[in-house]
Amino acid sequence: MYRSHDCGSLRAADINKKVTLAGWVQKTRDKGFMVWVDLRDRYGVTQLIFDEERTDKVMLEKAQQLGREFVIQVTGQVIERESKNPKMPTGDIEILVKELKILSESKTPPFTIEDKTDGGEELRMKYRYLDIRRNPVRENLIFRSRVAMEVRNFLAGKDFVEVETPVLIKSTPEGARDFVVPSRMNEGQFYALPQSPQTFKQLLMVGGLDKYFQIVKCFRDEDLRADRQPEFTQIDCEMSFVEQEDVLNIFEEMTRHLLKKVKNVDVADFPRMTYAQAMEKYGNDKPDIRFGMEFGDISAFAKAKDFKIFNEAELVVGIAIQGGASMTRKEIDKLIDWVKRPQVGAMGMVYVKCNEDGTFKSSVDKFYDQEDLAKWADATSAKAGDLIAVLSGPANKTRAQLSALRMEMAERLGLRKADEFAPLWVVDFPLLEWDEDTQRYHAMHHPFTSPKPEDIDRLESDPGNVRANAYDLVLNGNEIGGGSVRIFDKKLQALMFDHLGFTPEEARAQFGFLMDAFEYGAPPHAGLAFGFDRLVSILGGQETIRDFIAFPKNNNGRDVMIDAPSALDQEQLEELNLKVTVDGSTE
Amino acid sequence: MYRSHDCGSLRAADINKKVTLAGWVQKTRDKGFMVWVDLRDRYGVTQLIFDEERTDKVMLEKAQQLGREFVIQVTGQVIERESKNPKMPTGDIEILVKELKILSESKTPPFTIEDKTDGGEELRMKYRYLDIRRNPVRENLIFRSRVAMEVRNFLAGKDFVEVETPVLIKSTPEGARDFVVPSRMNEGQFYALPQSPQTFKQLLMVGGLDKYFQIVKCFRDEDLRADRQPEFTQIDCEMSFVEQEDVLNIFEEMTRHLLKKVKNVDVADFPRMTYAQAMEKYGNDKPDIRFGMEFGDISAFAKAKDFKIFNEAELVVGIAIQGGASMTRKEIDKLIDWVKRPQVGAMGMVYVKCNEDGTFKSSVDKFYDQEDLAKWADATSAKAGDLIAVLSGPANKTRAQLSALRMEMAERLGLRKADEFAPLWVVDFPLLEWDEDTQRYHAMHHPFTSPKPEDIDRLESDPGNVRANAYDLVLNGNEIGGGSVRIFDKKLQALMFDHLGFTPEEARAQFGFLMDAFEYGAPPHAGLAFGFDRLVSILGGQETIRDFIAFPKNNNGRDVMIDAPSALDQEQLEELNLKVTVDGSTE
Repeated sequence: MYRSHDCGSLRAADINKKVTLAGWVQKTRDKGFMVWVDLRDRYGVTQLIFDEERTDKVMLEKAQQLGREFVIQVTGQVIERESKNPKMPTGDIEILVKELKILSESKTPPFTIEDKTDGGEELRMKYRYLDIRRNPVRENLIFRSRVAMEVRNFLAGKDFVEVETPVLIKSTPEGARDFVVPSRMNEGQFYALPQSPQTFKQLLMVGGLDKYFQIVKCFRDEDLRADRQPEFTQIDCEMSFVEQEDVLNIFEEMTRHLLKKVKNVDVADFPRMTYAQAMEKYGNDKPDIRFGMEFGDISAFAKAKDFKIFNEAELVVGIAIQGGASMTRKEIDKLIDWVKRPQVGAMGMVYVKCNEDGTFKSSVDKFYDQEDLAKWADATSAKAGDLIAVLSGPANKTRAQLSALRMEMAERLGLRKADEFAPLWVVDFPLLEWDEDTQRYHAMHHPFTSPKPEDIDRLESDPGNVRANAYDLVLNGNEIGGGSVRIFDKKLQALMFDHLGFTPEEARAQFGFLMDAFEYGAPPHAGLAFGFDRLVSILGGQETIRDFIAFPKNNNGRDVMIDAPSALDQEQLEELNLKVTVDGSTE
Repeated sequence: MYRSHDCGSLRAADINKKVTLAGWVQKTRDKGFMVWVDLRDRYGVTQLIFDEERTDKVMLEKAQQLGREFVIQVTGQVIERESKNPKMPTGDIEILVKELKILSESKTPPFTIEDKTDGGEELRMKYRYLDIRRNPVRENLIFRSRVAMEVRNFLAGKDFVEVETPVLIKSTPEGARDFVVPSRMNEGQFYALPQSPQTFKQLLMVGGLDKYFQIVKCFRDEDLRADRQPEFTQIDCEMSFVEQEDVLNIFEEMTRHLLKKVKNVDVADFPRMTYAQAMEKYGNDKPDIRFGMEFGDISAFAKAKDFKIFNEAELVVGIAIQGGASMTRKEIDKLIDWVKRPQVGAMGMVYVKCNEDGTFKSSVDKFYDQEDLAKWADATSAKAGDLIAVLSGPANKTRAQLSALRMEMAERLGLRKADEFAPLWVVDFPLLEWDEDTQRYHAMHHPFTSPKPEDIDRLESDPGNVRANAYDLVLNGNEIGGGSVRIFDKKLQALMFDHLGFTPEEARAQFGFLMDAFEYGAPPHAGLAFGFDRLVSILGGQETIRDFIAFPKNNNGRDVMIDAPSALDQEQLEELNLKVTVDGSTE
């Protein structure tokens, strides 16, 4: 037996017990005649004491040689600590060591194993196994495990069945790029890794499983943006004989359950907002509603005067920045520069200071009088002391940029509090979105999403304005889940494929098995998938999913710890009937 | 709302309630003026009744048109059934239908949706979504989900943390073949899919996670034998600061917990047997110990006479077949033919009938007298009425074949009862096994397995007889789990790589990150992985894992439902910098 207790469990009540502990040397303090060692494991830290008098000298000398991160095993007596440490759960006691065994030595780690480390991200990724020893990283992984358990317990309690769908499936040219897997047994053919278990969960509904879920890895070979991973985890769910309302209710209950269980936070009923409202009020389909700063459309007032830029703009819209009237000219200029930052395309910002005395001072005083500006303040709910920031231009682009400004200012003002949770349903998403590249409509969610029955007859005449029975769950400005009511009628599905520009042959080649399944009595069904990495990171009060993944990949899709991907040897390629047309060696 | 109740929940207490149900038409009985419909969903079957008098005629006619597997929604009144069916939980009531809506029509399914179906396996795989509607298949999937929940609840209760390890990892040329995944972003390079999370779980131990588990998909590109799947699921576990005994204890407790929870079976402490004992007594490292039929080594007695075949054999060994003395000559000849079946290589069988009167009649009476045969009977524990079957030849091959005969006879005699559970630990596996092809030793478990300390000095002199701290959990003749104590000392690990014929460079190229990790204080650790598909199928009283997988692949690694794998289009191949050297089209 390597240990009688872990390093986090001994208390004053254990004094005089003989114990055996094992763990890592966190640090040593050497006073010559006495050595203290902080011994660490997953469960905590316990102080060990070696001294000339009470323990033997040889062992004291051995203790003096212990380096950071050595793995040791000690046997000794629990004694009362002279200077107690009330911050440590084990702070009342220490172990007077009688036997010491070094289990493994350690080189000096490349960064400190402390809550705040001196290691940069790249280094910590290369030595991820050392990074995981740090409390914050380990606690994130344990937190993730706990959230997963709570999800499973909740869903199992509601009769959901967890079903493992296959990972080696079939490639479909639509949507994001698939990762593919060459088959050796089926020469020249490839499997694909699933971007989601979408079709399988629908088939399970056709199969009568009624309520399905799975916490499952999905894969997308996309050019990686910051905080995207080529492999990610979904909580994937589907239900039969339900309408949108049933789905929203059950997953609202689940989210509320999670917030209560893992954060001890009570939230009221989730507000709901249509996609159109979200875009109008926040310029964003995943608004952070923890703070106000709602958009005020001032187009009508702004266009009443001779300011050409506004008069030519499709939309003039502003937000009130709390306390912004006290910004200096220089600070405002810097903000204007931020808005114009080159990567998003230049866009001018007009501002209005709402003075404490009720007057206004704007960058367009030449065109607008106090009465005009009062209307702007009213539209943006600006109060005395605020700064109104106004952007103008094409409606979509202007909204997107004002949304970015809104989030930036909320961040700067500390309004995005990690321990405050504001969930929100966004509903009635558009069914289709126009794709400039291919000059055709694409399914905004996916081709199996049901249009709203009352909008179906607009599919021909006004496809861009057909709304879907599709919904997103938004938490603190992040989409944590999304789903839709599915089409279960084969005629409507065929119509949808037609509107998405599939020929019947293409539709059959890609989704034939699903269309076939719909010939045999498909139930009405609907579902939702949560981005589990994102959900966990937001519940954990952070927004970087990488911090909640044990072994994440970097922005080039590489695992720098194991150095993957890597070149294959010739023999392996030949077995797979493959030739690589570029040089894949890393050197 | 599609339904007020599911199809399994209405009882006599609900009589007179107005209810709405939805589900599939299981069958209809049409008496002209009256129609009964069995409506089915995941939860059960409820009988619907339509009649001329109490409901309207138009609806009765509509009901008469309903085909099998139509999806319908009905609203009506719960009424008492005239002829109750005590076999059905809902058998006291029926629904007098007032409204009927057809939600989806169905073509005639290609096989009957009944517990016993008329569909062959290939057809049922192609229409797996219909197969899943059948009770036995659906119940298997629900059972699997339940076992997974029990495993998670047990392990979480023991402080195990579920950590998701990556699926896109690095290919290693050792062991079974990897499935690989070409990377588009890292040109010419490939990820591999994990055969197990072995190295990652060891890194988590180096990372101080202490107790890890994961229910995880693994992948092996092997030529498929019957009942092997290219993707399969493991319960993967690892613990730090433990010895073999700790691991055996906790997973014995888990297995006992599962048997109790999902089968309501109590089992005593698991017996333990060394690999050597298992081979000697059962000729098999995963013996089914639910029945006796232990091997009796009769070499000494058999070689005492002039029977050349036995005298030249390395081993002469027999088993007693219960009641076999009553077999006819023809039956025995058929059994001898079975033993000689060409696929295993011919081997003669000698037999001894143990007559009820205490005498013996053997096929080698010419060489052995009654006294000799009595010794054989004694060695094999044969009783009056039994048949002793004796095989001889090279020890390993003879044991393997006698083991096959033992299993076959147990099967025929009905001794392998699905509801009887006999778990067993097999310990002290050999560390290495000789590979004829490569003419060198391979790790029997994997290269990280620790040799028994007392055997380390035989690594050089007698490698084939070095025992490992490796163990298998066997249930009813199936290996359901296996694991080992790991090497955590970098010097011993280097020695092992050397003995396995790796150059230091090769070892570094493949396992460098693990060897690096061992430089920074690796704790002693050990683990185990269960084959989850196998575990579930055995707990479910069956031995075909395919029956417990939602969407299994066939023996060629194909998913016949979605028709995967398949050829990629040229554009996709070019993006991946690949050329396929064979024609991959299916036609």
